[in-house]
Amino acid sequence: MTSQRRVVIALGGNAMTGPDGSATPAAQRAAIAVAAGHVADVVATGVEVVVTHGNGPQVGNLLVKNELAAHEVPPVPLDWNVAQTQATIGFTVVDELDAALAARGLAQRTAALVTRTLVDGTDPGFSEPTKPVGRFLPREQAQRFMDLGQTWEDRGEKGWRRVVASPEPRSVLDSPAVRALAGAGFVVVCAGGGGIPVVDDGKDGAALRGVEAVIDKDLTAALMAAELGADTLVIATDVDHVMVDFGTPQARPLGRVTTDELRAHAAAGQFARGSMGPKVEAALRFADVGGTRSVVTSLEHIADAVAGDDVGTSVTAR
Amino acid sequence: MTSQRRVVIALGGNAMTGPDGSATPAAQRAAIAVAAGHVADVVATGVEVVVTHGNGPQVGNLLVKNELAAHEVPPVPLDWNVAQTQATIGFTVVDELDAALAARGLAQRTAALVTRTLVDGTDPGFSEPTKPVGRFLPREQAQRFMDLGQTWEDRGEKGWRRVVASPEPRSVLDSPAVRALAGAGFVVVCAGGGGIPVVDDGKDGAALRGVEAVIDKDLTAALMAAELGADTLVIATDVDHVMVDFGTPQARPLGRVTTDELRAHAAAGQFARGSMGPKVEAALRFADVGGTRSVVTSLEHIADAVAGDDVGTSVTAR
Repeated sequence: MTSQRRVVIALGGNAMTGPDGSATPAAQRAAIAVAAGHVADVVATGVEVVVTHGNGPQVGNLLVKNELAAHEVPPVPLDWNVAQTQATIGFTVVDELDAALAARGLAQRTAALVTRTLVDGTDPGFSEPTKPVGRFLPREQAQRFMDLGQTWEDRGEKGWRRVVASPEPRSVLDSPAVRALAGAGFVVVCAGGGGIPVVDDGKDGAALRGVEAVIDKDLTAALMAAELGADTLVIATDVDHVMVDFGTPQARPLGRVTTDELRAHAAAGQFARGSMGPKVEAALRFADVGGTRSVVTSLEHIADAVAGDDVGTSVTAR
Repeated sequence: MTSQRRVVIALGGNAMTGPDGSATPAAQRAAIAVAAGHVADVVATGVEVVVTHGNGPQVGNLLVKNELAAHEVPPVPLDWNVAQTQATIGFTVVDELDAALAARGLAQRTAALVTRTLVDGTDPGFSEPTKPVGRFLPREQAQRFMDLGQTWEDRGEKGWRRVVASPEPRSVLDSPAVRALAGAGFVVVCAGGGGIPVVDDGKDGAALRGVEAVIDKDLTAALMAAELGADTLVIATDVDHVMVDFGTPQARPLGRVTTDELRAHAAAGQFARGSMGPKVEAALRFADVGGTRSVVTSLEHIADAVAGDDVGTSVTAR
């Protein structure tokens, strides 16, 4: 079993919200049912599978609930909201995965793990937060939260929006538990939303504390894939390939690409910061720490992308 | 390692809310820090430890948030709220446990698992719900939710309150994952709030679906202890012993007691339905399926209760 391949799959927002971005429980469940089928197809190829996922719209909804109920019940911090989405998305994914695995006659069990990701308290994101979260509010309503210490930005016509730190993931603290479960034959769902951001306030890892931040889920996926000794990182999104010269007549999809080539495209500003940029960065990082291959492709192609390298954008060191 | 003792500890509400019942994040964290110290003391006795916990006030807060924000963001069902509390309480417990274990020089790692508990869709609780959840509302406000299909009861001066099913736990679906983690040396936090209630809509376990219910956490703890092959079930509460003739001049604590004796007290109506009743029932059930011993005692005595049988109320088959 030492030659067992292990694959980390990062599911994007389209795998857990409706086609219109809706995050009602029914829309989430319907989207997750489809995604679970594709994940089960990957399991069917004979590899160990660890699944992680985004949580943007879900966290946004929780922030609004906190805000609107603050006069009646205590609001909880952003790290608690991230945790909450790990559980609701996590149990829905394992419910649907159990069904998809059984439908394929596969015996694997599933597990959803609450997962913490260590970040650095001195990360520049904390002094200059840039990641927008939650809904737009008129200035006078936003002021109420700024008075509580939150950072909000004027976004023009749409109103003001909260911005938070998006610190670098340093270590997925619970990856030993993920490894134990994956090694015991479980398909593990973990590190949702990039993991619950925690800082280490003390010595010897003895004083962990959640912090108000959100971590990029693709960067956490790359880090976790390395920690788990996975050979392949699959970043599932809503397009078949990473594109260069996107939106121009010269637009073309990237197939097999080396990290040098991909890095050159990135340096040339080919990838949008909030969308394809972090996916490309995650693929580069995974290769840099010795990962065999990263693939960026659409959800419906992930099983083929794990089985061969002629699907999606396949990134290797050389 | 086959003779390794395994202990399931069920933490009561006092282990995760303030002395006044407050469930602010700060109050929860402070209470959990204290509880984690006691759990770490149990780990220090050399046994494998699995921790479960209640979530009543936390779920209550989430119900209010759903209610007050329903005009802006989609409410989520009760099973999702249970899941959310597993994550927030779970990661706070593992943070504090990591600190408490390190402070004692113990090398064990921790893991918090999202946990589903199978219930029967035909459980009488669903047709005649009895478990009160959430806050009291005036009748006209409660009517709005009754129109959505919820059951609310007139509770007199305090107002109306929602009641939900509290079905029998049939199987802790994720106990194989708990077993894998505990066997690999992790202190596992799981099955919070009795587990996320799910029913099996299909054949072969292939169609699990969350349901609006809450499961008694002590009954789930007893079931899980049996499934895990634990030898001891510890029910931590805010009193040192189960009492008989409570509130009378004849009041006396129970020390070592057999299931026959305890069942006789229960049959005589000694234990209140909403408080000590389920704890006594959990202890009886665990013995009935072959568990060696259950102990009901206060949080600060759990380590001594695991080490010997002269602390708390210790329940054995004979």
